[in-house]
Amino acid sequence: MIRIGILGYGNLGKGVESAIRQNTDMGLVGVFTRRAPESVILKTEGVSVYHTDQLIEKKDEIDVLILCGGSATDLPVQTPEYVKYFNVVDSFDTHAKIPEHYENVNQAAKSAEKTALISIGWDPGMFSVNRLYGNVILPEGKDYTFWGKGVSQGHSDAIRRVEGVLDGKQYTIPVEEALESVRRGENPELTTRQKHLRECFVVAKEGADTRKIEEEIKNMPNYFADYDTTVHFITKEELERDHSSIPHGGFVLRSGVTGFNGENKHLIEYRLKLDSNPEFTASVIVAYARAAYRMNQEGIVGCKTIFDVAPAYLSPLSGEQLRKELL
Amino acid sequence: MIRIGILGYGNLGKGVESAIRQNTDMGLVGVFTRRAPESVILKTEGVSVYHTDQLIEKKDEIDVLILCGGSATDLPVQTPEYVKYFNVVDSFDTHAKIPEHYENVNQAAKSAEKTALISIGWDPGMFSVNRLYGNVILPEGKDYTFWGKGVSQGHSDAIRRVEGVLDGKQYTIPVEEALESVRRGENPELTTRQKHLRECFVVAKEGADTRKIEEEIKNMPNYFADYDTTVHFITKEELERDHSSIPHGGFVLRSGVTGFNGENKHLIEYRLKLDSNPEFTASVIVAYARAAYRMNQEGIVGCKTIFDVAPAYLSPLSGEQLRKELL
Repeated sequence: MIRIGILGYGNLGKGVESAIRQNTDMGLVGVFTRRAPESVILKTEGVSVYHTDQLIEKKDEIDVLILCGGSATDLPVQTPEYVKYFNVVDSFDTHAKIPEHYENVNQAAKSAEKTALISIGWDPGMFSVNRLYGNVILPEGKDYTFWGKGVSQGHSDAIRRVEGVLDGKQYTIPVEEALESVRRGENPELTTRQKHLRECFVVAKEGADTRKIEEEIKNMPNYFADYDTTVHFITKEELERDHSSIPHGGFVLRSGVTGFNGENKHLIEYRLKLDSNPEFTASVIVAYARAAYRMNQEGIVGCKTIFDVAPAYLSPLSGEQLRKELL
Repeated sequence: MIRIGILGYGNLGKGVESAIRQNTDMGLVGVFTRRAPESVILKTEGVSVYHTDQLIEKKDEIDVLILCGGSATDLPVQTPEYVKYFNVVDSFDTHAKIPEHYENVNQAAKSAEKTALISIGWDPGMFSVNRLYGNVILPEGKDYTFWGKGVSQGHSDAIRRVEGVLDGKQYTIPVEEALESVRRGENPELTTRQKHLRECFVVAKEGADTRKIEEEIKNMPNYFADYDTTVHFITKEELERDHSSIPHGGFVLRSGVTGFNGENKHLIEYRLKLDSNPEFTASVIVAYARAAYRMNQEGIVGCKTIFDVAPAYLSPLSGEQLRKELL
């Protein structure tokens, strides 16, 4: 039984709690929160909620600590700190800051002889590992990543900051025609606008000027101006009824050639279609928690990424079973 | 520079020769054949062809030997034999006999302190590793593998054994409707007939009874009787003009649920669309030859499969570059 601790009980922490129940070789030891523990109600019976202050004293009861905080302010502090006491997995997803985060975590992990897996999830995560496989198999080729259809938290937040907006949700949608061109091996050069559409569902405040809101959203630099954006005004009830789930997904494609004259085309396509972005991310993290535990047991310590984890470490099956059943 | 030797110069060996040219950190030392070496003409200038008898004396000049023989009779003998002298990669693809092959190779590899990677390619190979990733991420789910559209060597051979047939090619085609049902998360139970179609292009001998040939093909047990099979009679010229390439591909899908009540559905889809089956297989093998070389340098010896190879070993980029550019 691999004993798991969860730090942070937002959507991702809840997803991890749920994923642990689907893995019979894992058990949840406790959830740690900065809130008042008695205000947090878990879905798993018999598991306690503790304040973050109590985390370090539980270090001998936890094999892997899963860090469910945010990449902006939580993880840059938490991962290097808690890896002094625990094997950890995080989903640090600020792509540009991964090298810096890696260095901070690696030093602490090595000193403590712990194993840290950072940036685990689907992007970064499964999408990254598929980009790597695609690049090494087809060195002469081109990468494409499309996201969606899914809810972008950042873009939904941007809508909600517009004057006159009560609430809103934004969906990122890949352009089907662009995807098909890639699949046909045409290796298109795609602009931002040609790759993704943005669709917004907005609840306006009473008496707000919806035409002005729509203009402001569509012309917002970085977020919407470079895209074909559609804005729908709906009621608060419609938003809650039709747009409360958190779907996402996307496509990683590698289009390349082989042969002495590059005469044969090949396409590798990896696609995710997810009803719940946080629950899927959590499911990836839990599989990698198993790997972190095992790698640490074998003396593989320091900071690692998804690229450093041999797939066999992820499975509860033995090497013999894997070769027989899945190879 | 990783120095590669090729044993066997059929379609796969030629694909390996071509793939090595796409990988700047690799060089071809020589091609070894059971035929008369002077009868084999390579496409790479300055590289020699040797008789298999000369292979062992070249052992200090070769970092990884790529075994390009067949799974029926060549590899069961060659892989355990040559791993005594070389790090090796093979594409042994008789699924049911992999455990036995593994044991034979593992003992020899460990004694010699060499690294053997067996069953590398796309199925077994990339499809296997995607089945594993799918299973560990979505433990509550169902696997689907579809093959095609592509040429099946075994089924083409079966057609050619029918009386009155001069030549023929068989395409395995996934049933689009079944694929779509899986993609919709319906978790269908699919019969053999519901998953794949078989399409045959046949050149009949002069005066042969084509109706009899068609009946015999369609009713052939194991190969065609359980499928909806179409038979087209064409001329030898048409066969050569339209059916001389060796395309293949397929789909690995994992459909599963997450959430406390399994309320959220997820789909992971991995797809390959290949103009040349042997060249793509060779490209996978060459990337894993890099891994075999590096793992051996790190003292990781014995028989390994695609499940045991951390993705980072496959890339010529450093860990730092990978984290910066692909994560």
